[in-house]
Amino acid sequence: MSHKIINVTVRDVRFPTSLEQHGSDAMHTDPDYSTAYVVIDTDCGLKGFGFTFTLGKGTEIVVCAVEALAGLVVGKFLQDIVSDFRGFYRLLTSDGQMRWLGPEKGVIHLATAAVLNAVWDLWARAEGKPLWKLLVDMDPKQIVSCIDFRYITDALTEEEALVFITCMGCFSRLPEDLMLKEGYPAYTTSCAWLGYSDQLLKQLCTDALKSGWTKFKVKVGADLEDDIRRCRLIRQMIGPSNTLMIDANQRWDVAEAISWVSSLAEFKPLWIEEPTSPDDILGHAAISKALAPLGIGVATGEQVRAPCLFLHTYHWLMNQ
Amino acid sequence: MSHKIINVTVRDVRFPTSLEQHGSDAMHTDPDYSTAYVVIDTDCGLKGFGFTFTLGKGTEIVVCAVEALAGLVVGKFLQDIVSDFRGFYRLLTSDGQMRWLGPEKGVIHLATAAVLNAVWDLWARAEGKPLWKLLVDMDPKQIVSCIDFRYITDALTEEEALVFITCMGCFSRLPEDLMLKEGYPAYTTSCAWLGYSDQLLKQLCTDALKSGWTKFKVKVGADLEDDIRRCRLIRQMIGPSNTLMIDANQRWDVAEAISWVSSLAEFKPLWIEEPTSPDDILGHAAISKALAPLGIGVATGEQVRAPCLFLHTYHWLMNQ
Repeated sequence: MSHKIINVTVRDVRFPTSLEQHGSDAMHTDPDYSTAYVVIDTDCGLKGFGFTFTLGKGTEIVVCAVEALAGLVVGKFLQDIVSDFRGFYRLLTSDGQMRWLGPEKGVIHLATAAVLNAVWDLWARAEGKPLWKLLVDMDPKQIVSCIDFRYITDALTEEEALVFITCMGCFSRLPEDLMLKEGYPAYTTSCAWLGYSDQLLKQLCTDALKSGWTKFKVKVGADLEDDIRRCRLIRQMIGPSNTLMIDANQRWDVAEAISWVSSLAEFKPLWIEEPTSPDDILGHAAISKALAPLGIGVATGEQVRAPCLFLHTYHWLMNQ
Repeated sequence: MSHKIINVTVRDVRFPTSLEQHGSDAMHTDPDYSTAYVVIDTDCGLKGFGFTFTLGKGTEIVVCAVEALAGLVVGKFLQDIVSDFRGFYRLLTSDGQMRWLGPEKGVIHLATAAVLNAVWDLWARAEGKPLWKLLVDMDPKQIVSCIDFRYITDALTEEEALVFITCMGCFSRLPEDLMLKEGYPAYTTSCAWLGYSDQLLKQLCTDALKSGWTKFKVKVGADLEDDIRRCRLIRQMIGPSNTLMIDANQRWDVAEAISWVSSLAEFKPLWIEEPTSPDDILGHAAISKALAPLGIGVATGEQVRAPCLFLHTYHWLMNQ
């Protein structure tokens, strides 16, 4: 059965999370967690749903960008898209007039992701599976074939391509039985948003422990004394065997990051996430090197601009 | 006299340049050179004008982004802005909800630039000078004080900051007398857009030589045989003493760039511009190293994402 895409619609959906400081961190002190929400319609009634996450203001810009991309999608057949998903990605990101607005960056990146997510969802529904199961059933090489490695085709080995898809969150190599039985490993960020009171933090942490959570992320970076107090509180509540991570959301300079995180070392965080500018690979490397003796890792890449940046990061890590 | 900003308007202005292939290159084969055009109104009647350049489709997205930024500008006094221009830049790029859409990248970058250009223009008009004269009259340290070096304040020496502003096109150190007498050094790209016929190319080149142009840029990267024929033609017309540059607009992988440009070495281009992904600093470094023995430089940075990327590029160059 063929599935012709006949319509792409997008909605600006906002949630007033800032009212109670849900989602707040050192850089985003009053976020209204929101989304540009895409629905794809096909001629046979099947639909695909996708979105990307925004923080409130400006969601209308992403909506506007999705509307501009829609013209590249309407009229396509799902079968043609999935038989050359890499080509479809390149079609969306290489339009001769629109690529100037990225390429593959910022608003255009977010809008492209919302459309692609909806197409992946449509694909899974057409196969009669949830998306995770579609991915699990794919051969790793099939997944690699969906990704556009433009610019680095020559430099990327097959092994690196597989590391890439693993880093990007594809879990095709996790044992499916285990996943169905025990669930997928995850941590919670919901206990310790930066704007929460100590009282709320204690209550949410108690609830999360009761629900079986073992890994907890805490937002840091606005005020060192506050961070010390909050990390001490969380560590006391979760005990030494559970895991604590911290996240500064790009708040610091490189030197500041090293000094600040060193002051929190006694609480044994597994990693500091996004200590500095997301564009500064070498800055992250310097922070990573300085914190290694303290047993604290550096997490980044929530925003990776381009596969070539991933490749250089990977090569740098391999050469340490 | 105070100047309070009372309104920011933006227009979507398009020119059908693709009809005659003006502006065409290897990646942008049918551009409609266009602009998001900003006008700032003040309570005393003074206006500021600014824009950023787009290629047609999607200009409405940049317009939408300018409208979202306008709320941060209306109500401000020009005097307050120019007394802390760095702070004003940070205000526009650090909004707790909107920075998620960049930060400082793509559509948001373009929209911010259009607004900032209009504010610079307003400043110059308030001083009763053209903008170049406002810049010439500023102390280099004053110019540096206008730029947000967030994330790299610790790592950036004053000398590097001055190199930065020179690279960014501020010409405060050119002798003003000479500039008024002889004009500002420039090259022309208008003779050799990729979609032009050889006949048109010859005609435009003849006209440009008559008008006194000595430096000519040629678009390359779609077809090697075409590039050889066109570069030979231009080099024959301009002779050995004038300057030829070539520009691939991000068309190649790294290895492909080295091989392709080597095939054009006999025409003695001064540089190859944007041979590969604008995000790939190390890729550009590899191309630069490979082409140095042929006497061909590499130009990039038309799209520099962030000051930290500039800093790393600068450090890399200094360590060669």
